[in-house]
Amino acid sequence: MTISNVTWDFANLEFDRVGERMGLSEEELSGALPRARQAHDDLMRRRAAGQLPFYDLPYRGQEVGEIRQWADSAKGRWDDVVVLGIGGSSLGPAALLHALGRNALPPAPIPRLHFPDNVDPFEFDTLLRNLDLERTLFNVVTKSGGTPETITQYLVVRERLQHKLKDRAPEHLVFTTDPEKGLLRELSRAENIPAFGIDPGVGGRFSVLTAVGLLPAALAGLDLEALCAGARAADDEGTRPDVLFNPAYRFGLSLALLRDLKGAGTVVMMPYSNRLLGLADWFRQLWAESLGKRYDLSGAEIYWGQTPEKALGATDQHSQVQLYMEGPFDKVICFLEVADHGVDVVIPRFYPDRPALDFWGGHTLAELITAEKRATEEALRQAGRPSLTALFPRVDAFAVGHFLMTLEIATVFAGAFLRIDPLDQPGVELGKVLTKKALEK
Amino acid sequence: MTISNVTWDFANLEFDRVGERMGLSEEELSGALPRARQAHDDLMRRRAAGQLPFYDLPYRGQEVGEIRQWADSAKGRWDDVVVLGIGGSSLGPAALLHALGRNALPPAPIPRLHFPDNVDPFEFDTLLRNLDLERTLFNVVTKSGGTPETITQYLVVRERLQHKLKDRAPEHLVFTTDPEKGLLRELSRAENIPAFGIDPGVGGRFSVLTAVGLLPAALAGLDLEALCAGARAADDEGTRPDVLFNPAYRFGLSLALLRDLKGAGTVVMMPYSNRLLGLADWFRQLWAESLGKRYDLSGAEIYWGQTPEKALGATDQHSQVQLYMEGPFDKVICFLEVADHGVDVVIPRFYPDRPALDFWGGHTLAELITAEKRATEEALRQAGRPSLTALFPRVDAFAVGHFLMTLEIATVFAGAFLRIDPLDQPGVELGKVLTKKALEK
Repeated sequence: MTISNVTWDFANLEFDRVGERMGLSEEELSGALPRARQAHDDLMRRRAAGQLPFYDLPYRGQEVGEIRQWADSAKGRWDDVVVLGIGGSSLGPAALLHALGRNALPPAPIPRLHFPDNVDPFEFDTLLRNLDLERTLFNVVTKSGGTPETITQYLVVRERLQHKLKDRAPEHLVFTTDPEKGLLRELSRAENIPAFGIDPGVGGRFSVLTAVGLLPAALAGLDLEALCAGARAADDEGTRPDVLFNPAYRFGLSLALLRDLKGAGTVVMMPYSNRLLGLADWFRQLWAESLGKRYDLSGAEIYWGQTPEKALGATDQHSQVQLYMEGPFDKVICFLEVADHGVDVVIPRFYPDRPALDFWGGHTLAELITAEKRATEEALRQAGRPSLTALFPRVDAFAVGHFLMTLEIATVFAGAFLRIDPLDQPGVELGKVLTKKALEK
Repeated sequence: MTISNVTWDFANLEFDRVGERMGLSEEELSGALPRARQAHDDLMRRRAAGQLPFYDLPYRGQEVGEIRQWADSAKGRWDDVVVLGIGGSSLGPAALLHALGRNALPPAPIPRLHFPDNVDPFEFDTLLRNLDLERTLFNVVTKSGGTPETITQYLVVRERLQHKLKDRAPEHLVFTTDPEKGLLRELSRAENIPAFGIDPGVGGRFSVLTAVGLLPAALAGLDLEALCAGARAADDEGTRPDVLFNPAYRFGLSLALLRDLKGAGTVVMMPYSNRLLGLADWFRQLWAESLGKRYDLSGAEIYWGQTPEKALGATDQHSQVQLYMEGPFDKVICFLEVADHGVDVVIPRFYPDRPALDFWGGHTLAELITAEKRATEEALRQAGRPSLTALFPRVDAFAVGHFLMTLEIATVFAGAFLRIDPLDQPGVELGKVLTKKALEK
């Protein structure tokens, strides 16, 4: 196993690099340390009391083994695996597959993984019509067992399976849900459909290292052990009490301070690698839903939140960077840089007599994309715009596990620092109630 | 041809609907009208002087005919068409194909269109290795002829074509570039490679109705006539001097006022339809790059900008809506709703004895996704969060052309209203210089 630690560079958040308008001074950082140390103590206490079980997920070797075994026993049986889930039940496994599964481009390896998380009738119908149901497994994922989008997709699939496969239909289903209660758990018992459990103390956006993420990853043949080992390495780093040398804490602290002291209402996650774009989607939910809150823990109205945006380097240099360079001072950029892309493409010297073309010859696409990232970072710095960088030595399971766990810890740390509950989402209830009301007969 | 006018609903931007914190009052709107009327006069004058040729693109029937003819003459020859372009040279055609081309899902119709806009070595190498070069056309798109990402991709492709096809290589290339000058134009002349022109007065982000968008659309068999007819209908609406009944002007005016009077630094485009997500990507460039500017026309420092974000309904209800409901009052949501998805999926009554499941039975996915959109809109309204809606009667070429042109007019109108030049992008120069410097030998 390669130990691909993601390393973090926070230098371009600092006062002496980006100037006083957006840069954090030593005084601002050290002034926040007492509260940050309290936040650390708070997390350690709650972890010890079993209130933050997401920390412990990468240590559950037995569960990982069971998932691996179940997936291996079905090897060769499926051409397609469809994950029916939405939000945290889709973003985690989709990010894993997008980064590690070589799923995006033809010819996709068998089994192909699909994440039709939306109830778009056109998209869902097109997908179903193009599957060979005889060769397809459906993984239905909802922790509560009652998520409307997932349940309605399940009903559609269930009927089509029944129509085509009769009493073999349940063999094409596997559930991921609460270990004891809820609708899916009931159906699992009633119809003898296999079902993996999700720890009741782990919310959707922290569930990537439960069966929610691990089962699709196992079915796609990803390295669960390396993923968990990376997460454990991040946990080792992420419990260091020395806040400024703990990347998870420093990330959470810096972003919270940039928001509160400098007005950085937006954090842009900008990978210079297509494969890492799913991680930015996953982070969007984690950061938005955990920290976007009306009330703090004392019940005071705060309307806190920092909008997580996704951009793709170098592509979005031709779309968003004009705004990042010259628009309002309201952003911090989190670059993801890859040291070794695994593959490289040499730019040939095809026109030796044309200097404007020959200039690029002999370089590689990896050199170009890295040069573009560093140039953009430096141009932003000169314009007084703060950024940080997560450097992936390569895109492998260890690095992805390391990155995911670092950001989960960063998020609960920011919650503790800001005195916000990062585990609830009261703001989405009204929409659910109104949806059901509209469909009542 | 079906006349699928997109209709706009601005009611939930108003004071009496969303309250005073974020709602626009009649006084605020009418107070802005003198400046808005001046902006209209300004646009009409510049249009008449030939300074805004993007307005006239949907009237160029001859150019459209030539593009259609060239594409038709190659019918059946290509299994894959690869568009090499970035920013405005990719976002427009990719949005058209994503909305109208049924490109996203297998089995993709032949020819398959690909938009590898990034210089990601892994992604680009994987794509190239999976193409049959004998059956592939490459459309190289750069207006200046010198965009580094596109030129380097071209050099890689050029050598592989040469290696495989020898002197037949140029037959697998078509350029879209400046009609007279630049590197690609020179190569086109020297090597007898067909090349379509881009009006020199039309910038990348306004180029979707030039050959940049129309050639890939024609190769995919889309209806160019309906696309242009939709854009012409939007132009008819979009020249109405009555600002409040002109959807393009009202869009531009409302968003500018929400930014300046209410602090809405972010506009979220949120389609409730996967197919329309590419339009949100296209809009992100249009709005960010046109209006994110350090200086106004008088040279005063303004650091203006409103960050365009993309979200997908209903999916992002499980990711972003918690933040939109309870976070800072810094956003306006632009919903895209589809009346007729073209396909629908009935939710079956598979478990008549289980009320929680049977509740959904008999409804359709289209009913559900629409109910979710309206519930989210209403929940946001009750929380004092402004939104507007563009209603697509269906997802067809007329509606897409109508929508694209409306937003292009909205953008130049906002520029005229704010006294910002919407056609330049000075902020990206430094990054380009630093990139070249890093790669100098």
